[in-house]
Amino acid sequence: MAEKNFTEVTIAGKIYTLGGYEDEEYLQRIASYVNSKQSELRRMRGFLRQPADYQNVMVQLNLADDYFKARKKAASLEAKVELLEKEIYSLKHELVTNQMKYEKNHGED
Amino acid sequence: MAEKNFTEVTIAGKIYTLGGYEDEEYLQRIASYVNSKQSELRRMRGFLRQPADYQNVMVQLNLADDYFKARKKAASLEAKVELLEKEIYSLKHELVTNQMKYEKNHGED
Repeated sequence: MAEKNFTEVTIAGKIYTLGGYEDEEYLQRIASYVNSKQSELRRMRGFLRQPADYQNVMVQLNLADDYFKARKKAASLEAKVELLEKEIYSLKHELVTNQMKYEKNHGED
Repeated sequence: MAEKNFTEVTIAGKIYTLGGYEDEEYLQRIASYVNSKQSELRRMRGFLRQPADYQNVMVQLNLADDYFKARKKAASLEAKVELLEKEIYSLKHELVTNQMKYEKNHGED
């Protein structure tokens, strides 16, 4: 198992120490994404007039929405990979069949 | 543009009204995901003894982590699709080349 790292990240101006097995660079990228998502919502009209728990939940729901959309994209790409692999299989089969037909009719010239 | 929906979701036992262009079923799935992520963290030793802002930020960072991992998976699948499409192109090219060679040598029989 990888060694556990402790990394300080700053979220909304406050420092948090994260312990985890991800490298520091990755944890900083995640923290920066959370900050950008929070800022994005804070720029929305009326958002800062909402209670803190509402603001937190909205950030969480928006992050979950990003995750669901990325997961959906990955799922459709997986389906596409499967189709393409089937096509490759049948193209290879066709190549071999043609080659056999060619050699049968005319010898290996 | 789709019509804006208003949907009530329950997060950590509290009801929030979401306005958006996503359908209600999707918003409920996102809310349920946020709830499960919150519960997952609350089950971690010592988590509930942490300040509320720490708990909230940890949920946000974990959701962002899920998003980054799904996005990374999608990116590697996109690269795979590109490779497979190149392979299909060259297999089709090979099929046509063989067919032409076959017809040139032996006429269309």
